[in-house]
Amino acid sequence: MSTTEKRHIDPDRALVRRKQVLDAAAACFGRSGFHGASMAEISKAAGMSAGHIYNYFDSKDAIIAAFVEQNVERVSQLMRDLEQQADPLQSMVDDAPRHVREHLDPNTWPLALEISAEAARNPKIAEVVRDADVRARVQFRAILKSSRERHGLAVDSDTLDGLLDAMISLFQGLDVRVVHNPNVNEPALARYMGIAMKAMLFS
Amino acid sequence: MSTTEKRHIDPDRALVRRKQVLDAAAACFGRSGFHGASMAEISKAAGMSAGHIYNYFDSKDAIIAAFVEQNVERVSQLMRDLEQQADPLQSMVDDAPRHVREHLDPNTWPLALEISAEAARNPKIAEVVRDADVRARVQFRAILKSSRERHGLAVDSDTLDGLLDAMISLFQGLDVRVVHNPNVNEPALARYMGIAMKAMLFS
Repeated sequence: MSTTEKRHIDPDRALVRRKQVLDAAAACFGRSGFHGASMAEISKAAGMSAGHIYNYFDSKDAIIAAFVEQNVERVSQLMRDLEQQADPLQSMVDDAPRHVREHLDPNTWPLALEISAEAARNPKIAEVVRDADVRARVQFRAILKSSRERHGLAVDSDTLDGLLDAMISLFQGLDVRVVHNPNVNEPALARYMGIAMKAMLFS
Repeated sequence: MSTTEKRHIDPDRALVRRKQVLDAAAACFGRSGFHGASMAEISKAAGMSAGHIYNYFDSKDAIIAAFVEQNVERVSQLMRDLEQQADPLQSMVDDAPRHVREHLDPNTWPLALEISAEAARNPKIAEVVRDADVRARVQFRAILKSSRERHGLAVDSDTLDGLLDAMISLFQGLDVRVVHNPNVNEPALARYMGIAMKAMLFS
């Protein structure tokens, strides 16, 4: 699958149109699932003709790839912000409530779940999410390594592997948790997320 | 949706048949997703006629409900085992590697993800998983409460709410993590899961 953006004469207009398609697709996938939503349904929701949508995306796989890429950019920006902090480890602990709130937002988790479920059965989507995950881990790993070094903490490969995946699990689990328990006690959960993060980041 | 088991003249034979359908459905859902797999495809994979399958399950929703119920029984058994331990809190920490291994097993996580994604868009399935979650939390909460009391730790309602959901998030996140990073360093991850669990359970 090509994830390359198609070239358009008016790039600003193309960006607006792409965004229109992505917003429509997010709504359709949320309602009918990735398999249930057709390109025809997505183009209708986006207010364009079925043929027109193919000017922006070749397939539903390409739309999912664009969502994954949007998330990569969001996470990458979070990492750059984190790098600027005096003590990134402590900043992560202090920011636990904000991150918990973001993960429990109903505008985020249904699509995240849909992408993970699709990646579990569609090798093309699996490749897209795994490639994105590798890039995010490289960036996160560098921050953890330099911040832990300044604290005199272990930075061997096993330590960083375990810390990275356990930290990410804790947050990815929230997307699942909120489906199973929509009445989650958010401040209480954020407090315990902070306890877990502090113990991991400083061990 | 009725999740009541249909009555059969030969209950042993009916149990075997139900198991056949569930195994076939797990394979079909894993391959095509919940929406992509039809009852006809499931009955074919189970080696029975399309009409015959309705003797055991009314619909795909009823099959998902049966999977959720299977998991409730598995978790319930884990809880009963945990209750028998001298120190359930410490046992959970000590058992982190085993639980991590179980969650990373490719026979478990694709179906767990499929059910969560479906629950995010299908109110009937949402009701089934939420009801199961309430029951599991009641059981888990009682164990945490009595074990923490013995350790002289806080057992107020907010503390138990936060601890429960953060602990469950950590494990449910593993099902997502392994899709995004299939090369997870399992012993390193289990070590950090243990660190997080110990900090949370004893705080």
